[in-house]
Formats: sequence, structure tokens, C-alpha cells
Amino acid sequence: MARREPISFPHLNAPPRLLLGPGPSQVDPRVLQVMGTPLIGHLDPSFIEIMDGTQDLLRYVFETENPLTIPISGTGTAAMETAVANMVESGDPVIVCINGYFGTRIAEMAARYGAEVRTLSRPWGEAFTADEIAQAMESQPAKIVAIVHAETSTGVLQPLEEIAQVVHQRDGLLLVDAVTSLGGVPVSVDDNGIDICYSGSQKCLGCPPGIGPITLGGRAVSVLNTRKTQVPNFYLDLTLLSKYWGEERSYHHTAPITSNFAIYEGLRIVAEEGLENRWQRHRRNAELLWSGLEELGLALHVPVDYRLPTLTTVRIPESVSDVQIRSKLLSDYNIEIGGGLGELKGKVWRIGLMGYSSRPENVLLLLAALERLLK
Amino acid sequence: MARREPISFPHLNAPPRLLLGPGPSQVDPRVLQVMGTPLIGHLDPSFIEIMDGTQDLLRYVFETENPLTIPISGTGTAAMETAVANMVESGDPVIVCINGYFGTRIAEMAARYGAEVRTLSRPWGEAFTADEIAQAMESQPAKIVAIVHAETSTGVLQPLEEIAQVVHQRDGLLLVDAVTSLGGVPVSVDDNGIDICYSGSQKCLGCPPGIGPITLGGRAVSVLNTRKTQVPNFYLDLTLLSKYWGEERSYHHTAPITSNFAIYEGLRIVAEEGLENRWQRHRRNAELLWSGLEELGLALHVPVDYRLPTLTTVRIPESVSDVQIRSKLLSDYNIEIGGGLGELKGKVWRIGLMGYSSRPENVLLLLAALERLLK
Repeated sequence: MARREPISFPHLNAPPRLLLGPGPSQVDPRVLQVMGTPLIGHLDPSFIEIMDGTQDLLRYVFETENPLTIPISGTGTAAMETAVANMVESGDPVIVCINGYFGTRIAEMAARYGAEVRTLSRPWGEAFTADEIAQAMESQPAKIVAIVHAETSTGVLQPLEEIAQVVHQRDGLLLVDAVTSLGGVPVSVDDNGIDICYSGSQKCLGCPPGIGPITLGGRAVSVLNTRKTQVPNFYLDLTLLSKYWGEERSYHHTAPITSNFAIYEGLRIVAEEGLENRWQRHRRNAELLWSGLEELGLALHVPVDYRLPTLTTVRIPESVSDVQIRSKLLSDYNIEIGGGLGELKGKVWRIGLMGYSSRPENVLLLLAALERLLK
Repeated sequence: MARREPISFPHLNAPPRLLLGPGPSQVDPRVLQVMGTPLIGHLDPSFIEIMDGTQDLLRYVFETENPLTIPISGTGTAAMETAVANMVESGDPVIVCINGYFGTRIAEMAARYGAEVRTLSRPWGEAFTADEIAQAMESQPAKIVAIVHAETSTGVLQPLEEIAQVVHQRDGLLLVDAVTSLGGVPVSVDDNGIDICYSGSQKCLGCPPGIGPITLGGRAVSVLNTRKTQVPNFYLDLTLLSKYWGEERSYHHTAPITSNFAIYEGLRIVAEEGLENRWQRHRRNAELLWSGLEELGLALHVPVDYRLPTLTTVRIPESVSDVQIRSKLLSDYNIEIGGGLGELKGKVWRIGLMGYSSRPENVLLLLAALERLLK
């Protein structure tokens, strides 16, 4: 029997965690502060200014001039689905490079939208070469090549420099997942010739999850504008979304105002620090972590040449219980790190140093706690 | 040429607005406060407690025992799409009742998912009878009948009492949009026999936009579990989502932690007030508004029998400029009300008294401001 009388539920209980897992990362206190701002309407002239400013800031952080650069009103997974749903039509040949969990996810999504998916595979912990991709496209053409820039499941940083050229020469579009790289390592959409790129707010941008930045270059916009079929997804339809975020301001959905305040402030902080400085900070703190882990006798899963500074995978020693160490880090020291995902479950820990979490004091504390627990 | 050096952007500018439009409504200060809480991880044991508590609270506010009752990580539009994407398979006959903008939107979405959509139409400002729906189903069966409980575009409250019976007797599912009613007027999912019901966080629940509560009853879950085809939407796939929100805790996406804090606190406030008390408050303040508007010589668009207490449509006098009055309300008094949508553009204003915005002092202030501006 349904109840309608007053009832009481326990207070929100959120212990003071240090978030050093694969995400979300710590939210910058300035971002938390703006999230307490009373709302304004989504059609308010002041909100329109925030929308425009956010798009300019996203162009700065993506390093692009792309007009179609917006924050999707959902998490990184929604941004991934936006990329796939809008670019793929039923029957389209798509190559997905899989060397971890998130490549697998792109392939699954593309299949849901009717793509003829071919996968290029590499062991979890390795990167792809431009040559491999060229060969795959030679053997059979593809409309889209999808690749993960920073594999959150493995800690691999995929070099992008030569891939766009290889893909464009064969009339393909390059779709790049930059969820765990944007704002932490160079993504450089225009310089790297990326056609479609998306990310999430909760990694190197220092915001809560819930916003998925995306940008589309001219080739991708042409593909969007010349689709033969309607995008089978209303919420993530980029044609409608670009009219909501563009000059027309046509109503599509109610923007999640507070999350938009957050991403605006988070991006302002990125711009104030400057991308170059921010990349250097992420690199410096990652190196501090890497040397510290090695001093503890732990082995890093990914060779330094393509090791991701924002997320480190470290092998769990044979003698040690994965779950017990992570539980004790959380219960004794309020530190969260991540376990392995998929193939690497039980084999590695995942340590994120992203956005506001990327600080030397966090590295020292984690190393000190690990040292005690691993004794 | 992309810039990587530090640059500065203007501070977030959010004037102190009183939100009395069609949504978002004012956010309860307690909700704003919890949004400043530092994050915890989405797999943190404390977050799991919040997830479970949120589902219990959603069952309270939906008045249901449905196990599958969760907050979608997107706005009300995402919740609408969740309902449609998971229930519709290509070729399914669907009846959509259209007496306003949001009925039209459901029909558009259902068509995107391949439904054979038939529409039942009523002028914008009227409600449907159970008889009409029975006749439509007799003339041609339908798998789903979709109807909007509270049409945000017209201010009509659709009676639901007899509709479920009519639909169920003819082997259909009743899908109800409760975006502008949940928490403000009785929705009573179980008592009304609603099979699929969804809402949004930013109306009568007093939270920012960004969360879309949804609930599915046993019949709807059976339909979900016996689909012939995969849901052509990964982000909103309820089978995956129910494993993320259920016992399995299988990773699907990163919950938008802060928005989840917000909806938990917002729902706690609803439960503390009690649904009956809350409905009465919304009714009382709406009646105060209605009599005040009539004293100003303004005509209400919807007859009192099916007039929605949470959103009032009032006709704009012929002699008055729609845009000018709304601009002056905003610029002179920081009050936001809504203009008409679709057929009613330029003909009505839309005044919302929802959630924390439903307060007698807000009604008096708006009436006083309107009186000055209409002189």
C-alpha cells in the first residue's frame, strides 16, 4: 500500500574521500562553490551568455576552431553515443580499434546503430600504429575509424599524430575518445586532424560527472548534414542540439543548468592555468607517482613510451589481495583507487591523477598509505 | 591557430531570478547545499547506499512498489526517450494522445524507434476521455498508449483514473509523462495502473534539471524482457541500467554523483513534507494565483475542472505585448515566467508554481509586479 504521509530518510552520507581512481576525480572547490548558485532559467539571457562562453572554452580545451562544439547533457558515455548515433547509418562499415574496455564499448554501440563493425585488436596495455590502421582500411574501406586516445581500462596513451592522415587519405573519418585525456594531456583536435572527439567532465576537467563535451569538424558535419536517414535518437540528435546551442536557440531539452555552471567554471580554471601548464603538471605528478611505485617494488603495466600520465595501471603483486588493499585504503585512509576492468581484473590497480586530483601531496599520501598496507 | 597559454574568461554571471516559468523551478536551498558536497566515487559503498535510498524515495513519490524505479542520468527528455526506446520495437502500433507540445514529442520519438504511430488529437487546452481511448483501441489495437499527465505547454491536467483499465482490457501498456506533475499533484502509479511513468527533477521535485526519474510495472518489465530486438540505445538501455542500479552493480556509466546527491536530498524533502501535504500546498498556492489573475482581469486558458495546479496558462490581453511584459518582469523584478509554446505562442503566459517555487509570497510578488506592468 502506497504511503502519502510524511516519512524521514537518513541524511546524505558522503565521507571525505580522496579520489585517485579512474574517475570521477576530485572536483575543484571553485566548481563546487558555483554549484550552490541559485538557478537561472535555460532561456535566460544570462544563461545564453554562459552557453556561448562554454562553447568558446570547449574550443580552447579541444584546441579547435570547430563551430559545432558543445557540452552534451549526459555523461561521457552519452557523448560517446552522440558521436556514434550521429555518424553511423545502418550498414556503414566502421573500424573500431580495441585494446581495452572502452574500445569494446564503441564497437557495441556502433553495432546497435546498425554499423558493419570490424575490429582491430591489440592486447590490453598496447597501442596501435598508423600502419596497422592503413592496412586495415586497404583491405576493406571504412567510413569511420574509432580509437580511444586514453584507455581508462589499461592506462595506454594512443599516439594520434599520423592516424588522421592515414584515415583521411582513404576517405574515412577519425573518431577519437578523449574521455581520460582532455585537459590532462594534449588532444589537439585541429592539429591532429580529428573529425569527431568527445570527453567527460569528471576526469581531467575537475567537474562532477554529467556533462560530455563533443566537437565535430567540417568533414563530420558534412556527413551529418547528408545523412540518408534520421538519427534514431532524439536526445542526442546533433542537428537538433546544434540549433539549441546555436543562433536559433530552438528548444530541445532543458539544459542541466547547475551542471552547465560547473563545466563553465571548470573550463575557466583550465584556461586560467593554461593547457601547456596543465599538461606539464599532469606529467610531473604522474612521474612522481611512477618513481614512487617503482621504489615500492611495484611494476607498471604499460611501457613508459605510451604510458598515460592521467591514469596509471600498476600490477598487483602475487602475494597481495586486490580487494583487501583497496578496502583498507578506503576504510583506513579514505583514499579511493580503482581495480582492474575486464581482462585486467585482479591483475592491476588503476590510479588516476586527473584535474584537481593531480597534486604532489596526493601522490605522497597514496605512496605512504600503500607502503604501510603492503608491508 | 589554437592557443595553449593561460587566458581568462568572465566570472559566472547568474542574476538572482525568481523562477515562475514552466521549469526549471527554484531549487530548494537544502538541495543547493548538498551540491557543494565533495564527490565520492560511483562505486563507493556510501554511494551505493545513496543509490538504494534514492530508489526507495522514488517509489514513495511515484506511489509504487515497482522494483524497476531509477533516476535516469539525463533530463526529463532523456527519461521520455528511455520509456520510448525500451518499450517500442520497429513496427509496433503505438497510440499517442496529443493535446500539446509534449505529446507531439512522444510521437516523434516513437517514430524514430520505428513505431507505427497513430495520434489522437485534442485542441491545446483540452483533456482526453477514457472513452475516446477505448474507441481508438477498438478500431485498431495498440501495444502502447502514451499520454501526458500534465501538459507543460497548455496547463491541462489529464485525468488518469479510468484510462489504465481501458488500455489493459485491450492488452495495451499505459505510458504516462508526469514531468510537470510528480511531487506536485497525485500521480499514484500503482493506484492508477500506470505501466511506465517518468518525470524530471527540475519541476515539482525542487532540484536542478539533469535527472529523469522513471518507473516500470510488471507488464512493462515483461515486455522489456521479451523484446525480439536489442534496444537501439546504449545509454538508456533499461536492462543494462537495471543491472547497474540493482544487485549486480554492473558498470554501465559513471552516475552524475552531484546530481544524484541533489535528487536524493530533493526527494527527502518531499518525503518529510509528505505527499498529501505537498499536493495541498501546490493546490492552495495555485488557487491564490488563479483568483489574483482573475482580479487583474486576466482570463485563464484551461477550465478549472482540468486545470493544472503546478502550471497555469493565462491568456495575454490583446492590447499587451507578450515579449515586453516578460522582459520587464525579468529586467525590473528578476521574475521569470514562460511564453506560449507551439500553437499557444504569443497567446498565453505560462506561470509555474512548482516545488520550492510554490509559495504564497511568490504569488503575491508576481501579482503585484503584473499589476504594475499591465497598468
